[in-house]
Amino acid sequence: MTGPFQITATDRTTAARAGRLQTAHGVIETPIFMPVGTQGTVKCMAPDELRQLGAQIILSNTYHLLTRPGLDLIRQAGGLHKFMNWDRPILTDSGGYQVFSLAKLRRISEAGVEFQSHVDGATLFLGPAEAMEAQAVLGSDIAMAFDECPPWPCDREYACRSVALTLQWAARCRKVVGQASSLSIPVQDGTGKLLVPRQLLFGIVQGSMFADLREKCARELVAMDFPGYAIGGVSVGEPEPEMLQQVDCSVPFLPVDKPRYVMGVGTPPQLLAMVARGIDMFDCVLPTRAARHGKVFTAHGSYSIRAASCRADFGPLEAGCECYACRQFSRAYLRHLIWANEILGLRLLTWHNLHMFLSLMQRARAAIAAGSFEEFQREFNAQYNQACHSERSEESLLDEGDPSTGSG
Amino acid sequence: MTGPFQITATDRTTAARAGRLQTAHGVIETPIFMPVGTQGTVKCMAPDELRQLGAQIILSNTYHLLTRPGLDLIRQAGGLHKFMNWDRPILTDSGGYQVFSLAKLRRISEAGVEFQSHVDGATLFLGPAEAMEAQAVLGSDIAMAFDECPPWPCDREYACRSVALTLQWAARCRKVVGQASSLSIPVQDGTGKLLVPRQLLFGIVQGSMFADLREKCARELVAMDFPGYAIGGVSVGEPEPEMLQQVDCSVPFLPVDKPRYVMGVGTPPQLLAMVARGIDMFDCVLPTRAARHGKVFTAHGSYSIRAASCRADFGPLEAGCECYACRQFSRAYLRHLIWANEILGLRLLTWHNLHMFLSLMQRARAAIAAGSFEEFQREFNAQYNQACHSERSEESLLDEGDPSTGSG
Repeated sequence: MTGPFQITATDRTTAARAGRLQTAHGVIETPIFMPVGTQGTVKCMAPDELRQLGAQIILSNTYHLLTRPGLDLIRQAGGLHKFMNWDRPILTDSGGYQVFSLAKLRRISEAGVEFQSHVDGATLFLGPAEAMEAQAVLGSDIAMAFDECPPWPCDREYACRSVALTLQWAARCRKVVGQASSLSIPVQDGTGKLLVPRQLLFGIVQGSMFADLREKCARELVAMDFPGYAIGGVSVGEPEPEMLQQVDCSVPFLPVDKPRYVMGVGTPPQLLAMVARGIDMFDCVLPTRAARHGKVFTAHGSYSIRAASCRADFGPLEAGCECYACRQFSRAYLRHLIWANEILGLRLLTWHNLHMFLSLMQRARAAIAAGSFEEFQREFNAQYNQACHSERSEESLLDEGDPSTGSG
Repeated sequence: MTGPFQITATDRTTAARAGRLQTAHGVIETPIFMPVGTQGTVKCMAPDELRQLGAQIILSNTYHLLTRPGLDLIRQAGGLHKFMNWDRPILTDSGGYQVFSLAKLRRISEAGVEFQSHVDGATLFLGPAEAMEAQAVLGSDIAMAFDECPPWPCDREYACRSVALTLQWAARCRKVVGQASSLSIPVQDGTGKLLVPRQLLFGIVQGSMFADLREKCARELVAMDFPGYAIGGVSVGEPEPEMLQQVDCSVPFLPVDKPRYVMGVGTPPQLLAMVARGIDMFDCVLPTRAARHGKVFTAHGSYSIRAASCRADFGPLEAGCECYACRQFSRAYLRHLIWANEILGLRLLTWHNLHMFLSLMQRARAAIAAGSFEEFQREFNAQYNQACHSERSEESLLDEGDPSTGSG
């Protein structure tokens, strides 16, 4: 029996590949961008709007849902899908990243992390067992192992300890889910009935900038045999070359026939750079958060709708764009809405940016299938980099803390 | 030739009546509730969602659009309808109310009011001619005369001067639009082509709590022959009996065959109380603003979705409600969204509350047509007043200042 992931096309000149990942709530086509729904909602968007946009899978954050509304409530609701009325796949992170970036008064031990909720100060504990239990309650289609995500920069000693802890925790998570994966469910797959695990567990490669630690972490995780692998600890403030280097250090040690996911990335050119390296999955708050700051992503780079040049511009956000916002509203109106702090402005910019990211991945999949990904990437980058606004200002949005609403 | 307003049914036992008002952008059925779109958008809602909700007409605020984005831009856009992508009727106020409630450093003369914009401090001037010019640029279907809205309470001397100024300004507005109303446009009306004025101008009855001043103001306005009349200066902090009394003092002196509009009102029982007095049109920020505070309106009264009792309630906001929010989401989820400051929560509560107000008016129209409005009102009030939350808390929402977003 084949596994849940099938590669359907490989590019001729790059490591890019297109595939299909079968999950309990349906198939997702890779490479794929996952909109971030931190608190059980992709900010500004309704679930049926995400469906209209063609979002195949969203990400939600275990830490945030744990602290509010709490797991008991989501258990009573019958899981996160029912709670938020989204019937397509969901990936949940393990909560580890937010424990280290958002929570206060952390006490780290081999068992896990004791911390105070950023919502109400309650003392909570999250370790590998608790993270798996939480994600089981959420009922996500893809769960992430509980890991330790080091800051950037980080010294070798810290990175060594981080990898050791990450591997120890990954083994425990694998054991928990290994037992539970007997819980397979039948899924209709066109060709007939297929048994898929209720939840796929991905291991996470850490190791910071140290190539040998990345290799060690990847090799040991692969020995544990996960159905997919993530590369973590990237997009934490390091320059882009270092970000790509961390991916380059990790990918060679991951199996070809399992999905690969780079967490928390990135700008449109970064996504394509990762796809060219054989990465299949991405999530990032960039399109949604940037929208709430008035940033618009287009094939010709990004710009701020707040700019004076948009004041009396009655054209759409992006010429030729087919999205809901571009079909109905002008830059001039959207600029007015954003300056006037109107929620409709945030909604429409979010819609457009998500459309841009999702359709970029759709075009990447088509280019891979056509064997012309390298050309597609080259042409996209040439057009994108004509932008007068620098990517640096986009990336800086990823560093902003927003304790009330979290990382989404 | 008949005028643009036709009464289609009158109730047997109350003064309630149902009618049709022909405007340049279509017919509206009265009695009607107009959602408020202060800054060229009904907060949280997209225009096509308002259409789905059955909103026939919205209100927008001249003062807000004047201060931001400014009339020049809306002129360039081809009017407010095109700017905001709304093709159904729009009523604009004259800006007078906001000049008195929001702007700073007012200097009042017979010519009008000099004031500083609350947005950028710019010195602006608004008088009857300017208010008419502004509303002509906005291209609203119904424009309001520039009036002086006294505070509550207010002494007789102030109220006398206010009525004198209001009448003087009304006459000037009437003269401006009288000249312009030769600008009639052809509208398809089912039975054939009909010429309707590009813009209908309504006069506004002021006079505070003084019955003789209300009578004087109404009589003199009627002598100027407006196509519709509003009762202003209500819902400015006075108790409900005084509010109704001001309407009772004004209605007898208004022509039966012209639409009557009470500005800035009100709670569901207040709307029905006004309908029973022969009022045809209403606008109020209550359903939209209350939604953003977590207040839910239902046929059984209002409640706060923030309440602990909603925490694990997986039923809809209102049992039996057919609105988008109630068909798809639970109280528990919506409570989570509101506590987590998520925009989707504000959107869904706004949707439900607008549905409640709009369908209340729809049911009132049906009851009038059936000659059973009094019974409908009695039954509605009995059910509504079982609510455990008092109307007082709803009304207090109308007093909140919110300089950044204005009165919407």
